[in-house]
Amino acid sequence: MSVDTLSVVVERDLPYPPEKIWRALTQPHLIEEWLMKGDFQPEMGHRFSLRADWGSVNCEVRAIEPGKALSYTWDTKDLRSIVTWTLFPSETGTRLRIEQTGFQPEQQPYYRGAQAGWPRFLDAMERVLRERN
Amino acid sequence: MSVDTLSVVVERDLPYPPEKIWRALTQPHLIEEWLMKGDFQPEMGHRFSLRADWGSVNCEVRAIEPGKALSYTWDTKDLRSIVTWTLFPSETGTRLRIEQTGFQPEQQPYYRGAQAGWPRFLDAMERVLRERN
Repeated sequence: MSVDTLSVVVERDLPYPPEKIWRALTQPHLIEEWLMKGDFQPEMGHRFSLRADWGSVNCEVRAIEPGKALSYTWDTKDLRSIVTWTLFPSETGTRLRIEQTGFQPEQQPYYRGAQAGWPRFLDAMERVLRERN
Repeated sequence: MSVDTLSVVVERDLPYPPEKIWRALTQPHLIEEWLMKGDFQPEMGHRFSLRADWGSVNCEVRAIEPGKALSYTWDTKDLRSIVTWTLFPSETGTRLRIEQTGFQPEQQPYYRGAQAGWPRFLDAMERVLRERN
């Protein structure tokens, strides 16, 4: 049988306008507060890393549409994946969608880890959004 | 914190043209062989059910683009979800994508079940595709 590619998708309604969420997604001092420490820049092809206690993630910006969408590679150890953020304006603020694609069926620890991890990162982002008016 | 909506996404490269896969997705006698028994019709708004030993799924066609995309609701017990199939022609055949969206964080049994289930359904579809030339 063929090999599947698996993705993790989480969507959350946030009571903030897209511009505010966009800042949390793209400003390194804010990214550090909810995700990881890194040298992100909102430029196509920009390479950056995200660093945590457990190791680091190598990233390269693959798509950027200010206030609307942002995509970067997310490579760590033997995982080659892509993270895509999409912001949909809603009546109450923004519907934020995170998709991480590229998990192989035998990479269950990464796959399960992402399923558990992204909601926690979103919780942390919400705290940043609430505290940084 | 806000409530997330979770999705399961599985993509698989199949060595068959989109038209052949489209038939497996839309012809009831083929659907029955790899998914469940049901009265699907490729018409917007068509309501149908899929029946298995464990119960049934209530569906309604929400989008249809012959040979390219098909979306229907997938409601069972207290799950309200949407299944979307997308077919991308590739050099070797077709890249088939299934996305089921609408899982709530507290619906882990459904979420885990879909993660395990769709690859198995795709295995069964592949057998049908191989045997029905």
